[in-house]
Parts: sequence; C-alpha cells; structure tokens
Amino acid sequence: MTTNELYSSYEQKMQRIADIKFATAVLQWDQETNMPVKGAQFRGQQISTLTELSHDLFSRDELGNLLQDLLAKDDLTIEQKRNVERNWEDYTKNKKYTSGFVRALSEQINQTFHAWIGARKQNSFALFEKDLDKLIQLKKQETDILGYQDHPYNALLDEFEKGATVSLLDQTFHDLLPPLKEVFNKIISKPQVDDSFLCQHFPKDEQWKWGLLLIKELGYDMEAGRQDISEHPFSISFNAQDVRITTRVDENDFGNMTWSCIHEVGHALYEQGLPTAHYGLPLGEACSYSIHESQSRLWENNVGRSKAFWQYYYPTLQQHFPQQFGAVELARFYKGINKVQPSLIRTEADEISYHFHVYIRYELEKKLIEGSLKTNEIPHFWNEHYNNLLNVTVPDDKRGCLQDVHWSHGSFGYFPTYSLGSFYAAQFYSSAKSNIPELEEQITKGQTQSLLHWLRENIHAKGRFYTSEELCKQVTGSGLDVSHFMGYILKKFETIY
Amino acid sequence: MTTNELYSSYEQKMQRIADIKFATAVLQWDQETNMPVKGAQFRGQQISTLTELSHDLFSRDELGNLLQDLLAKDDLTIEQKRNVERNWEDYTKNKKYTSGFVRALSEQINQTFHAWIGARKQNSFALFEKDLDKLIQLKKQETDILGYQDHPYNALLDEFEKGATVSLLDQTFHDLLPPLKEVFNKIISKPQVDDSFLCQHFPKDEQWKWGLLLIKELGYDMEAGRQDISEHPFSISFNAQDVRITTRVDENDFGNMTWSCIHEVGHALYEQGLPTAHYGLPLGEACSYSIHESQSRLWENNVGRSKAFWQYYYPTLQQHFPQQFGAVELARFYKGINKVQPSLIRTEADEISYHFHVYIRYELEKKLIEGSLKTNEIPHFWNEHYNNLLNVTVPDDKRGCLQDVHWSHGSFGYFPTYSLGSFYAAQFYSSAKSNIPELEEQITKGQTQSLLHWLRENIHAKGRFYTSEELCKQVTGSGLDVSHFMGYILKKFETIY
Repeated sequence: MTTNELYSSYEQKMQRIADIKFATAVLQWDQETNMPVKGAQFRGQQISTLTELSHDLFSRDELGNLLQDLLAKDDLTIEQKRNVERNWEDYTKNKKYTSGFVRALSEQINQTFHAWIGARKQNSFALFEKDLDKLIQLKKQETDILGYQDHPYNALLDEFEKGATVSLLDQTFHDLLPPLKEVFNKIISKPQVDDSFLCQHFPKDEQWKWGLLLIKELGYDMEAGRQDISEHPFSISFNAQDVRITTRVDENDFGNMTWSCIHEVGHALYEQGLPTAHYGLPLGEACSYSIHESQSRLWENNVGRSKAFWQYYYPTLQQHFPQQFGAVELARFYKGINKVQPSLIRTEADEISYHFHVYIRYELEKKLIEGSLKTNEIPHFWNEHYNNLLNVTVPDDKRGCLQDVHWSHGSFGYFPTYSLGSFYAAQFYSSAKSNIPELEEQITKGQTQSLLHWLRENIHAKGRFYTSEELCKQVTGSGLDVSHFMGYILKKFETIY
Repeated sequence: MTTNELYSSYEQKMQRIADIKFATAVLQWDQETNMPVKGAQFRGQQISTLTELSHDLFSRDELGNLLQDLLAKDDLTIEQKRNVERNWEDYTKNKKYTSGFVRALSEQINQTFHAWIGARKQNSFALFEKDLDKLIQLKKQETDILGYQDHPYNALLDEFEKGATVSLLDQTFHDLLPPLKEVFNKIISKPQVDDSFLCQHFPKDEQWKWGLLLIKELGYDMEAGRQDISEHPFSISFNAQDVRITTRVDENDFGNMTWSCIHEVGHALYEQGLPTAHYGLPLGEACSYSIHESQSRLWENNVGRSKAFWQYYYPTLQQHFPQQFGAVELARFYKGINKVQPSLIRTEADEISYHFHVYIRYELEKKLIEGSLKTNEIPHFWNEHYNNLLNVTVPDDKRGCLQDVHWSHGSFGYFPTYSLGSFYAAQFYSSAKSNIPELEEQITKGQTQSLLHWLRENIHAKGRFYTSEELCKQVTGSGLDVSHFMGYILKKFETIY
C-alpha cells in the first residue's frame, strides 16, 4: 500500500471510532437535557454498549499494526506524522489495560458513584468511604499498570495533563500559594465590598434572554451549537459544527447563570475552532484539559469579570434588569462581581481562593495514592486544611469532602487542571494583550473578535499538535509561568480592595 | 451449552444490536428537533456508521448459528421460540443481500432523496425522474434478490406488511372502493359543511398547552416520553420507557396540530405498551406497520373525531380558545372537523378520500415494479387518476406526484399500510365496543382508560408474536374485514351530510 492509502485507511478507522464516541456524547447530552426519567435504565445500557464498541475498535491489533506501519514511513506530512504519533501513544497506553481491569474499574466506578449520591443525600462521608477506598485501591493498581517515574500519582496526572508531574505541581503551588495567601489575608482584613444586589429576584425568562445575548456576542456560532438547561452546566461537542452548552438559572442569584454561560462558551468557542479537516484525529481534538480550562477561565475571568468588559455590557444589562441594576453604579457592580471571601464550595469560589480549594484536593489525592493518607482520614484532613488555608470551619461533609463528583468517577489527577487552566489563561491573556495592543480598548467597545481570532489562530487551530507546555511556549515564548497569574491578581484586586 | 445459556447469549447479542439501533434513533430524533444546521454533515456520517455497525452485527454467521442451534431446541418457552423464529426469518432475509447491493441502494437513495428535495423546490418531476428511475431499477433487482410468488411487488409489500400480497390488496380495494366512491359522490353533491372556524388565528402557546393536555389525558406517560416541535410530526422510540412524539403548530389552522398530536400519541401509546422484558427482541417490537398505523388512526379518527369524544372535550377546548370557539356549537364543530372534500394532498385528506390517495399510489407502484408503467409516465398517470377518482385537477407536480417523500427513500410497498391501518382500526374498534359495552358512554365522560387497557392487553403486550392477520383473528375473531370500516363510514357520515 502507498503511504496515502495507508493514511486514508487509518483516517477512516479513526473517524469511525469518533462517530461512535460522538454518538455516545449525543446520548449523554440528551440524558442531561431531555430524557424522561424512566428512560434512564435502557439509556445506560445503550451508552455502555457504544462505549464498549469504540473501545473495542481502538484496541484492535489491526489498528496498532497500521499505526506502526505509518510510523515507519518517511513521507508523511508533519501534521499527518503528529496525528499518527499521538494516536500511537494513546494506543500503546490503552493496550496496557486488561479487559478484566477495565471491567472491574468500570463496575467499581458505577458503585462508587451511587454510593456518593447516597452519601451526599445522607450528608455522611462514612457511607462513601468503603466504595471510595476500593476505587482508590484500583487507581493505585492503575499506576502500576501504566508505570511512572518518581511518584505513582504522576501516572494519573498524565491522564489529564500530559507531562504534568508532582514535582512540577509542588513547585507551582509552592511559588504561588504564599503570595496568593498574602493577598487573600490582606483582602479579608479590609472592609468587604457589597454584592447584595446580585441576590435579588431575576426572572428566569429575562436571564435566559440575557445569557443568549452574551454567548452570541462573544462569538458562539448558534448555527453550530445551542444552549439548553441542565442541572449542572456543561459543554459538549459532537464535532466542531455541533458544540452545545447548557446552563442553569437561579432566580435569586444573578451570577450563577451569567458566568457559567461565559465559562461554558469559552469551552465551546475552543471546540468550534478545532479544524474539521482532522475530525476524529488528534489534530481535530483539544490540546489538553488544562488548555481547555484556560479557554473557559480566560473568557470567564480575564474578560468576563474585567472592568473593560462591563464598561460596554453594563448599560445593556441595566436595560434587561432595570429594577435590579438601575440604581447600581458600574463601579459598585464591578467590585461586587469580584468579591473575595473565604468559602466552602469550590465552584462558587472567587478567583483567588479558588486555588486553595484545588490545592487541598491535590494534596489529598497525592497522599492517598502514595499511601500516606488513609481513605477514612479524608474528612479530618479536609476540614483541617480548610480551616488553615481558607479560614472556614467545614460544618458537614456535604459542604466539605463530599462536594465534588470527581473522585466517585475515579478522576484522580483531574483537579490540578483547574488551577493550571487559570494560570495558562493569565499567561495567554498577557500575550494576547502584547500582540493586540488595542485589545482592552476594543473590549470597552464590546469588540472581542480580535481576541477570539487570536485564540483561534494560536490555540484552537492547533488541535492536539503540541502538549500544553509546548503550546504555551509556542504562543507566549515561555513555558507555564505563574507570575502572569499573580501579576493579574495583584493588579486587579488592588483597585477593588 | 444449556438452552438457557444459549438463549441468554442470543438475548445479549440482540440487545446489543438494539442498543446501537436505538442510539441511531436518538441521533435521528435530535437531528429533527434540536440539531444546529451546520451539524448535518458529521451527523449523517455518525448515523451511517452506527447503521452499518448494527447491520454488520446482525449479519454475522455467529448469530445465524446461534439462531439455528436454538431452533433445534425443544425446551424453549413458546415466547422464546417465537422470538427466535422471527429473528431467523429476519436473519435469512437479511442474508440475501450482498453488501455491494446494500451500498448501491443506500447511495442511490441518498441521491434520489436530494433530487426529490431539489425537484420539489423547482416544482418539476423531470428533475426527479432520472434518479427515481435508477432507484426503481434497483428495487426491481431487490424483488429478484428476495424472491416472490405471483407478483414482484409482493416481495416489497412483504417488507412492510408480512403476508400482504397484490391479490389481497387488489381484492380489498376492489371490495371497498366502489361503495366508498358512492358515499364520496353523494357527499360532494350535498351542501358542504362549514369548517371556516378552524382557520382563525390560534396562538402557538395556547395550542401547545392544549396539545399537551390532550396527549396526557389520552394516557401518554410523560415520564416515559416528551413532545417537541419538528417540521413533520413523528413518533420515535428508544425503548418502551422513552417514546417521543413531535408536532408542528400552524397558527392559522387549528386541525393541523390537534389531530397530529392524537395521531402520534396513538403510535406512542403502542410503543409505551410494548413489553420491556423483551427489549431488543421481536416480542418487544410492534407487530407491523399496518398495526402501528391502526393504533394511530384508531385514536385519531374512531376516537378523536367522534361525537362522544368532543362531547367531553369541547367545553375544555372552548375554555382554551373562547374567542375562536365560544360562539361555535358542538354540532357545528363536529361536522366541521369531519368535512369531506376532494383534495390534492394525502396527509390533509378526510377519512373517506384518504384511501383514494393511497390507492393511486398503490396502483402506480405495482405497475412501476411489474414494468407496465415507465417512470416518465408517472405524472400523467397520477394526474389522470386524481381527476377520475378524486375529481380534482392537479395544478403542478409539487401538489401532485412529488408530494410524498416515500419513493425517494425507496419505500415502495409502504403506502398500502396506511389504508390497512384504517381498516384494522375500524375492526379493532368494533371489537373494543363489543368487549366494553359501556365504552362510548365512558368516552362521553372523557374516560378512555378502559379502551387503552384493552388495546394494551390485546395488541400492545403481544409485540411481534403474531402477524397482522393472526393478531386480527386473535383480537376480533376474523381476518381483515373491510366491512367494519365501511360500516363505520356509512354510519358516521349519514349523520353529518
């Protein structure tokens, strides 16, 4: 076979797998947005069957041989070569798992997830502990299956963030946390800003209209996506031409919907910007979890909580909610939406304390996987660190170590990508400003297209060509450098507090 | 392997195939209701991949051998035996097709469908003719592949209606059409009833509420289904616990939404009543297309256009639309919704002339497949028969032989099931009335539960255990007998005209 024929055959196989994966995503989206309650049982079965099918197709020796044949070719284009290399990495990693282990893990995740649901309802970690422990033992096994250098947790980090390691994260948090804690302490010693106007009554329909207006203005292509309601906001893609987002509306909390719309649209703009020519191949996929999160955080915070942004949008917002915001001045609104305070729930945290939440989970996971912390010690560890780092007393497990779903899904190694996302966002945003000197001026006029265009060209269009670190160097001239984030925080909050 | 083990393995394989087929249905439902326009290309690819996958799994020798092994067992329950027999029939039929033919057919259907879209837009059959002709040649080939007795069209009829034949349909239409034409002629010679009140302005939101009320009252389980908007109303099932319907709203035509809701809910009640224990197996599937249609027509016409039904619902309807119906008496309303008149469009036809539409298509298809009519002669044949049978002059192809999508999908042999559905509906309804003597009295009180219960027990719960004809005998004591339909028509319309 010629190289072209081999490559076409590879493309076809990968697209077929993608078709099944994206079909599964449609079933999942429907499950969260439209499915009638009784549909759950068979839907679960349908999703399992498709998941198994795509996994089976991706594990076949036939595909492995094809990838190896292609790796040996010297007349692939650079993009073709990268696609094949990335898939080969995925393939060999995937091959390490026995089907017995995959089944055991999937069954334990299912059990642990249901245990979590029950434990949250009963507000008791004890009800979760046994299943979580079994899952942690399996995740430890997984680190052996995958192999690692230096620290077993590295094997799990690598799942979500290629190249991330304990030593790198330790260093990052070591550099960042002390100055961040200093700002935080300073802020909470000052008079608190007022954000009470965000907790008035905001009618659902009007919030919905406002949310739609925002996402369209930010460049979300409604002909290649749609917004719906779900219990937890998320974004999901079935291909770059059909990327959907969901939101929820809290009539008593304006912030809930607005920034979740901006956050999810950040994810969606990334997916809509991926090259369709590489559908089903690595270059048609997002770079990594942290880079994905960098896009949502950049729009949500660096843009969506900036003074420039609201200079333009605030009058429109006031027109939508004259009763609620008519008497609130822009300066007061801006301070209110950037309020910093100790808090219990990660997803509701401000831009500063957010990283304390992530750090505590990171420390916990690391210790659980290395075996220096036992599963039953989680609540004590959690509560103690919340007290030390966030100055809050955790009143119960529901608002403490049971709050996030990730562990019940077996997603150990995921949380750090949330913080990395914010750090990359700040660094990318610095670069964007250097490259588009008139950017902030444009934003005050509601023009964010040049920013989107810059992100599209430098980040979205690249797909999974680079690792996060490589991409960061490519775009900003250096690897991850948290001083951008710290600089952003210092500059922003000295004008607020 | 024990019989039980064999049977379980068979069940598992069939459920897996069902999972993929129903996942495909979710993708199709989403395509019609939610998908953003740009999503079409990749969605088409995803649907093709899943369709190919389920077809591939159903064609494997492994499954064939398993079915044969099971057929040889003598300790299957009667239900198990029937499942295996039905699947063996499907399997052997399916095996007759070469993959080359399947691909050629699917590609030609795709082309013909697009040609139809274009031809309709341009209002010109000539633009459709070439592709339609190619498709007809393939369908003729298909009759040879499948084999047939007496008439090639029988092979295609059998696809949609097991056991239906040209001689049976010829006889049925021969018995029915002359008396039906006589009633029709008599009616159109009389003063026409007034139905102008149905074409006022009916606000969308209020129609939507009214439609939801109706389907719920008729017993549609909203926890196992949902209603949405689509261009053409349809019902679709992902399993008996998740059966969805769609509708459309015409603000200037009250009838459009109301009876399409009742029609689709008739289909959906059937699907919601199928036994979940046989998910993925023949006994978990509907009996046939005509029996499916009998359920929708029974609710739409025998119930939904009856005097008894509106005796109860009309006051509620008047409350929903006081301006439109406040001054219209029930008797006038009842006559208006049963207006009979010559017309061009099948889907909008009254209960009598509907069958003239179907008959013309049946005659056309029969002649095309036997080769006595050429594809380019369709418009002339069509227009001539519409003139003779329906007393209308067809003004153009769009309102003539281009109006239905079926041929462009290659669905030759489908139309007759529409008429059979009405005939079965009348026969079932006669039986229901004999078995539930107080039925019409109940319906005047809005109580249709005993009817639904009777249909559930006698028809829905049986799945595909019987053929249409067997089921009809089982339920009514005799095979299809159009005198029930004729009797219903005569009795009903003598009070209206």
